[in-house]
Amino acid sequence: MFIEKIKSEGLAHMSYFLGIGEAGKAAIIDPRRDVDIYFDLAQKNNLWITHVFETHRNEDYVIGSRQIQEMSNAKIYHGVQLDFKYGTGVNEGDEFEIGDCLFKILSTPGHTFESISIALYDKSYSTQDAVGVFTGDALFIGDVGRTDFFPDRAEEVAGLLYESIHNKLLPLGDQCIVYPAHGAGSVCGSGMASREFSTIGYERLNNPALQKNKDEFIKHKINEHHYQPPYFRKMEYINQTGDVNILSGLPIPKPLSPNEFAEQMSDLQVLDLRNPEAISGATVTGSLSIPVNMLPAFAGFFLSYDKPIGLIADTNHQIKDAVRHLVRLGYDNINCYLNGGLHKWETGGKDFNKIPAVHVKDLISKIENHEQFTLLDVRSIDEFNSGHLPNAQHIYVGELPKFIEDVDRSKLVVTFCGSGQRAAIAASYLKQNGFRNVGNCLGSMSACKAVGCPMA
Amino acid sequence: MFIEKIKSEGLAHMSYFLGIGEAGKAAIIDPRRDVDIYFDLAQKNNLWITHVFETHRNEDYVIGSRQIQEMSNAKIYHGVQLDFKYGTGVNEGDEFEIGDCLFKILSTPGHTFESISIALYDKSYSTQDAVGVFTGDALFIGDVGRTDFFPDRAEEVAGLLYESIHNKLLPLGDQCIVYPAHGAGSVCGSGMASREFSTIGYERLNNPALQKNKDEFIKHKINEHHYQPPYFRKMEYINQTGDVNILSGLPIPKPLSPNEFAEQMSDLQVLDLRNPEAISGATVTGSLSIPVNMLPAFAGFFLSYDKPIGLIADTNHQIKDAVRHLVRLGYDNINCYLNGGLHKWETGGKDFNKIPAVHVKDLISKIENHEQFTLLDVRSIDEFNSGHLPNAQHIYVGELPKFIEDVDRSKLVVTFCGSGQRAAIAASYLKQNGFRNVGNCLGSMSACKAVGCPMA
Amino acid sequence: MFIEKIKSEGLAHMSYFLGIGEAGKAAIIDPRRDVDIYFDLAQKNNLWITHVFETHRNEDYVIGSRQIQEMSNAKIYHGVQLDFKYGTGVNEGDEFEIGDCLFKILSTPGHTFESISIALYDKSYSTQDAVGVFTGDALFIGDVGRTDFFPDRAEEVAGLLYESIHNKLLPLGDQCIVYPAHGAGSVCGSGMASREFSTIGYERLNNPALQKNKDEFIKHKINEHHYQPPYFRKMEYINQTGDVNILSGLPIPKPLSPNEFAEQMSDLQVLDLRNPEAISGATVTGSLSIPVNMLPAFAGFFLSYDKPIGLIADTNHQIKDAVRHLVRLGYDNINCYLNGGLHKWETGGKDFNKIPAVHVKDLISKIENHEQFTLLDVRSIDEFNSGHLPNAQHIYVGELPKFIEDVDRSKLVVTFCGSGQRAAIAASYLKQNGFRNVGNCLGSMSACKAVGCPMA
Amino acid sequence: MFIEKIKSEGLAHMSYFLGIGEAGKAAIIDPRRDVDIYFDLAQKNNLWITHVFETHRNEDYVIGSRQIQEMSNAKIYHGVQLDFKYGTGVNEGDEFEIGDCLFKILSTPGHTFESISIALYDKSYSTQDAVGVFTGDALFIGDVGRTDFFPDRAEEVAGLLYESIHNKLLPLGDQCIVYPAHGAGSVCGSGMASREFSTIGYERLNNPALQKNKDEFIKHKINEHHYQPPYFRKMEYINQTGDVNILSGLPIPKPLSPNEFAEQMSDLQVLDLRNPEAISGATVTGSLSIPVNMLPAFAGFFLSYDKPIGLIADTNHQIKDAVRHLVRLGYDNINCYLNGGLHKWETGGKDFNKIPAVHVKDLISKIENHEQFTLLDVRSIDEFNSGHLPNAQHIYVGELPKFIEDVDRSKLVVTFCGSGQRAAIAASYLKQNGFRNVGNCLGSMSACKAVGCPMA
Repeated sequence: MFIEKIKSEGLAHMSYFLGIGEAGKAAIIDPRRDVDIYFDLAQKNNLWITHVFETHRNEDYVIGSRQIQEMSNAKIYHGVQLDFKYGTGVNEGDEFEIGDCLFKILSTPGHTFESISIALYDKSYSTQDAVGVFTGDALFIGDVGRTDFFPDRAEEVAGLLYESIHNKLLPLGDQCIVYPAHGAGSVCGSGMASREFSTIGYERLNNPALQKNKDEFIKHKINEHHYQPPYFRKMEYINQTGDVNILSGLPIPKPLSPNEFAEQMSDLQVLDLRNPEAISGATVTGSLSIPVNMLPAFAGFFLSYDKPIGLIADTNHQIKDAVRHLVRLGYDNINCYLNGGLHKWETGGKDFNKIPAVHVKDLISKIENHEQFTLLDVRSIDEFNSGHLPNAQHIYVGELPKFIEDVDRSKLVVTFCGSGQRAAIAASYLKQNGFRNVGNCLGSMSACKAVGCPMA
Repeated sequence: MFIEKIKSEGLAHMSYFLGIGEAGKAAIIDPRRDVDIYFDLAQKNNLWITHVFETHRNEDYVIGSRQIQEMSNAKIYHGVQLDFKYGTGVNEGDEFEIGDCLFKILSTPGHTFESISIALYDKSYSTQDAVGVFTGDALFIGDVGRTDFFPDRAEEVAGLLYESIHNKLLPLGDQCIVYPAHGAGSVCGSGMASREFSTIGYERLNNPALQKNKDEFIKHKINEHHYQPPYFRKMEYINQTGDVNILSGLPIPKPLSPNEFAEQMSDLQVLDLRNPEAISGATVTGSLSIPVNMLPAFAGFFLSYDKPIGLIADTNHQIKDAVRHLVRLGYDNINCYLNGGLHKWETGGKDFNKIPAVHVKDLISKIENHEQFTLLDVRSIDEFNSGHLPNAQHIYVGELPKFIEDVDRSKLVVTFCGSGQRAAIAASYLKQNGFRNVGNCLGSMSACKAVGCPMA
Repeated sequence: MFIEKIKSEGLAHMSYFLGIGEAGKAAIIDPRRDVDIYFDLAQKNNLWITHVFETHRNEDYVIGSRQIQEMSNAKIYHGVQLDFKYGTGVNEGDEFEIGDCLFKILSTPGHTFESISIALYDKSYSTQDAVGVFTGDALFIGDVGRTDFFPDRAEEVAGLLYESIHNKLLPLGDQCIVYPAHGAGSVCGSGMASREFSTIGYERLNNPALQKNKDEFIKHKINEHHYQPPYFRKMEYINQTGDVNILSGLPIPKPLSPNEFAEQMSDLQVLDLRNPEAISGATVTGSLSIPVNMLPAFAGFFLSYDKPIGLIADTNHQIKDAVRHLVRLGYDNINCYLNGGLHKWETGGKDFNKIPAVHVKDLISKIENHEQFTLLDVRSIDEFNSGHLPNAQHIYVGELPKFIEDVDRSKLVVTFCGSGQRAAIAASYLKQNGFRNVGNCLGSMSACKAVGCPMA
Repeated sequence: MFIEKIKSEGLAHMSYFLGIGEAGKAAIIDPRRDVDIYFDLAQKNNLWITHVFETHRNEDYVIGSRQIQEMSNAKIYHGVQLDFKYGTGVNEGDEFEIGDCLFKILSTPGHTFESISIALYDKSYSTQDAVGVFTGDALFIGDVGRTDFFPDRAEEVAGLLYESIHNKLLPLGDQCIVYPAHGAGSVCGSGMASREFSTIGYERLNNPALQKNKDEFIKHKINEHHYQPPYFRKMEYINQTGDVNILSGLPIPKPLSPNEFAEQMSDLQVLDLRNPEAISGATVTGSLSIPVNMLPAFAGFFLSYDKPIGLIADTNHQIKDAVRHLVRLGYDNINCYLNGGLHKWETGGKDFNKIPAVHVKDLISKIENHEQFTLLDVRSIDEFNSGHLPNAQHIYVGELPKFIEDVDRSKLVVTFCGSGQRAAIAASYLKQNGFRNVGNCLGSMSACKAVGCPMA
């Protein structure tokens, strides 16, 4: 019996491959859509994937259950409280045995109503003491799941989550290892530990959210701010209906020469995957820059499902990573990429933009000299409220499409965030929307803290 | 903060790579000698290996500490109770901080006197509640370490182990994850779980050895039977003195044609790595067969350090695996292999032996018909005593070199073990030593149980 | 402009990936069905596959053209003399330009009527001097294509091949590099060089078949013996009609426990992939043994397309290789494999067979002692006629299904071939068909030559 | 018998692995220093490397002969006309047989005096007709070797090269395949074909240099301009003496935090490996930028052997590639890299530079408006002379260290080359040397040609 944690970077999503050698079988908890890694593990370990458990209807990625089912005829299980159009509903107390593994279903609503946790027992030792529990988005390491999906019932769901944790998960016992669905960096919770392993006992003692009483907990949860990228709606639809395009492999974008690419640009969403420094140096006019590692968290704020995507990158590695990231978000129509990247674009004499980097020292000097410019802070409202530079205008990066008209086009805009990465996306979005004079403060608030900045 | 478990198959040895991103550093617990995997992890994660902890002077493999030290200048730490000729001694209570990681040393003697465990804390959460503990050979999942290395002080060391577990490890708290140095299949303990993850709490509740009181525990431990392969002495010497050959890469054996191989055979220990069925089919006269996956557990009973090794295999994968297995045991002189394997040997017209497979049904019929033959049972004495076939002669496979003269050369010998694998080694050893008429009962006791056998 | 030769082992089939960087395009000549390798090359080199050339309707494997077309929308080209149901017919003199590459079609019938060769020019240097030519099955390195597919018109097609070589290929000039569709080991020609590179000039001077005048050439060709495995008919159908199952990935066989495997055996063609020595040691009763590297040449004599296949292997590597080999031959229904291989079969107490290895010295002694047994020589008739042991009975291994009734079931049968490999298949086939007493002469004729044998 | 071409990107160096299966041996021609690829090929093909041939004392990279010799005890062969301090001298007509391979030495001076070519014969076909020839730096595909290393004897060596080609190589016959030591992109010749395969016949007919008579040829050669980076002297010393550091693996640079890196910078040569666009965006003050793919051609103009190197990169792939590139040039002291790259540098608040990209249209407008600035053209003198922009100042990028004082520090300098890549190095070098106002014309002359520029 072994557990392999599969981490999807960017989403900070964790799925789990549970191999049960004596049965020749494997179970997957919350699989991602690019399922090759599970089948590789199965083949390497002489296992057949027979069970897929979904802890809840995920909203931040396309779940891979149906893809696995097509390939290995596995059964899919999820909570009954939602009307799923595929798979089998399970209830509190349902049990599944595979070899020495015993899975028991716990109903743990809060993040969503149909959320379940799955407790794991090693029958050869005990059917009473759980050795582990897959907690989905109920309990994370150092935090708990977000409860903002039902704003009309905010207190109710926060209370449900409290009960789920205190009446279902903690009673499993301190010895029980915690296998959550997300780790640090996920948009599904903000306070997760960078440590990747924990137990019910350790969380009971040290998870800040578990030190609160029910009232404090509810108050804390309803005061949290979370953003919901528009693509969440698409994920919810797909993951509830199972109406997903079954892949016969990852999409292979076609290399286009600069001339071909330029000709097709009007029919494309052109996505630049390079680093903020490269974006500062030169970008294809009309493109939107989202550094590849930021795609999982931010692509869904900006990309439409209706228009094919054309990629710009420095390396084939970036292209390959982007394809996986996009497919996980349901963007299958990755049509082409600019062959030779910016270099060929430049040697072809095509137009390019620049988004000059602004050092934080220059920014301070601009502020102190009362220069006319907009300092656009695109961090989350919580970050902004915890400290920002004087006269900064706040719009969350993901909400720029909604509020772009609030930004003054006539002045220089310097974008600003925690480190210069979200600011790069924001700056690129402004450029794409016709802003002439845009800079990006590389380093942003982190650099401010390192060198010392005046704060508002 | 992440932990990557590195499993060395065959030895069932676990080492741990602890990556501490915020510090750009990594610590290794009980590294194996082929250290490429640690450096690959370090490079992939932008870490530098700075600390190596040895839970004790290992006796079953060459520890990789000195190799790592040569490559990254890491510091090596181990218990003070043994006079190590390299590294730094540590005492109960010593602490090491790397980024958010805090390591605390626990003295946990029993398996050996200098054994330590290392408790791990995440300072950003708690310096009181250990999140994990590296238990070395003190506590395994489902079992505890062997205590047979000091036969004159058998009760004492068993008692020490009891105290180490109950007074040092269990007090860490139920929430603490257990990271042992061995898993199921190791020669360092017989009752380990096939499950690869556990906690102090789970072991406290379910580990059979932890349910005993001190007297029962000591009695249980001093009644265990363990075998000590002769190579343990070499490992102990190397691991105490650090007097080890630093590798600049894994040895590359030279392919030899059948004629070249035949000419050099008298200067070689010829080791056949193929499966028991292939060994039954045809073997090079004079070779010793140890299927490659059995090398870690059995090579040390048969191979000398004084003579170069020549390999015979079906595939290059077997050669590569064998080189790693042998190097871990300190056998660096892997000189050559038979290019083209048995096939080229055969087409060259060279002599080969056969070790006919004997089905358990035929074995029963031989027994029932009172045929004249020796049924040589080469399992451990504990296995033998728990049930064997009528008239079986018992010699443990690893002790055949000592007791081979007790086997009657004039009769057919059919070797027998748990499944036919150790029996294959035994049969091959008999052949190598001039026995004419040898068969191997493929399936052995497992097959007996499946079809039903008369038991003595 | 680069050419990457893709060698499919066993078939000794060569396909070619022609990368044209300046155009961002690639052309494939005679692709195999598992096309991942071409797409990997394309992606790594930023190319898009736009052209597929088929030198002829291949009879020994499923061509991958349609698979590529589905994935990249490439155009497929082949000779007009056959009524293909897909792709585009091309004629002598047709030209294709991609970047600096110029392809010119040559009609080179003989092996088949629609056979073409494709001459390659580098326009930036010359459109007169071909730098290379893809010769299909017309011209090999050291040999020429077989001409036995039209037995009624044997002289005609041999003459056509002579004309194709002398009037089409040789006139390309000595400087022209030869890229044939097969190399040494293929069933498509027997005298190919083990050397993998040559030119028109080198072949003109040194290829034995090119030293003959037309009459000698025709006589030589019509006197050749070739075997046509029954699966050729299926390949011809698929490759003419394009009526092929488009793969969304390679089949993944399911691991079955010994009990599950035993239960399903009656519905399976059970195929044992292990080496001859392992086959000698123990085989699953009812299975057919074809060592994995021999599948491409021999599976098509024995396997039906109507029954799912169950595999037996020593390693996952063998399973993976077998899946590719079988898919290339159009066997897609690879249902399952015996998890744990023979070892688990044995420990489950299941029945197994043995096919004792016979050393050539023992064989000679049997012959000299006039023992009663059948020496069954399963080599090709040409090999047999060039020298065989006394009293050997000849049946070609591939024709055993037709002539098995000619073998005396009442006596020991020792199978014999060039080296013991084909003999292993033959022996296994006899066992599968109820022969009780079967041995295999490992080493066979090669061993005879090494030790000296009496010849008939 | 197979030949595997090993291409070292950047150097555009070709080495060849010649596998001779029937002998179980391999020969390498002109191995590079990171020899793992040869040993991987050898192991995969069951071969042992026994022969290394050096076509000449290479001046552009450290040859791997001594490294191979240490690992496999191979013999090293090279021409006798130079006093090598290792290996064995060979003369015209010397022969070496390995299996069916016959190697014949041809003395082919010109590029250097001791240059040899090695003709390859397949003994099983012919010992008269060479099937291939390894031409070193004598004959390339589409060009011939440079002859500028003996400026005092320029005509003599050009004449020698003519004789070598016409009297030694062409007589091998049109059928002979050409295996040169360099391909397109090498600094060892400027007119090589992008096509990677050719024959003596094809070159005889189409290589421009082979269409000239001796006088024309000599005149052509002595009028060529080549640059000799200073590191050539080090390579010549190492490759003549064999006095090279034997590697036990590739160097592993240590990750340093921004603070650590900043502290150590004064003791380092800081090398930035990122793309020109990223360099435009932000660079570490004091660093020198050479995009990783340009290291082989340009590092040797700028880097000293006396100071350790610290790297800056976007990805670990760049670090790994840089380590190989640098080791091939003999730079072993690759001490560290900036962990987290520019991003962490920025968030640490450290200083960074910008080198604004200049679009060619803006450049033209600057020129047409008679703005005060220096247009610094860093292409080779031949490129410059074949057409340049008005008022451009010419200094070859590699000679900037010599002539930097000729550049006016008081004005904006816009660097310019063929495409913007060499210009990026030049711009970075100016910045490193205190120039305040520097831009880089991304696209440069290629972009000019695409959009239309005024030419001087």
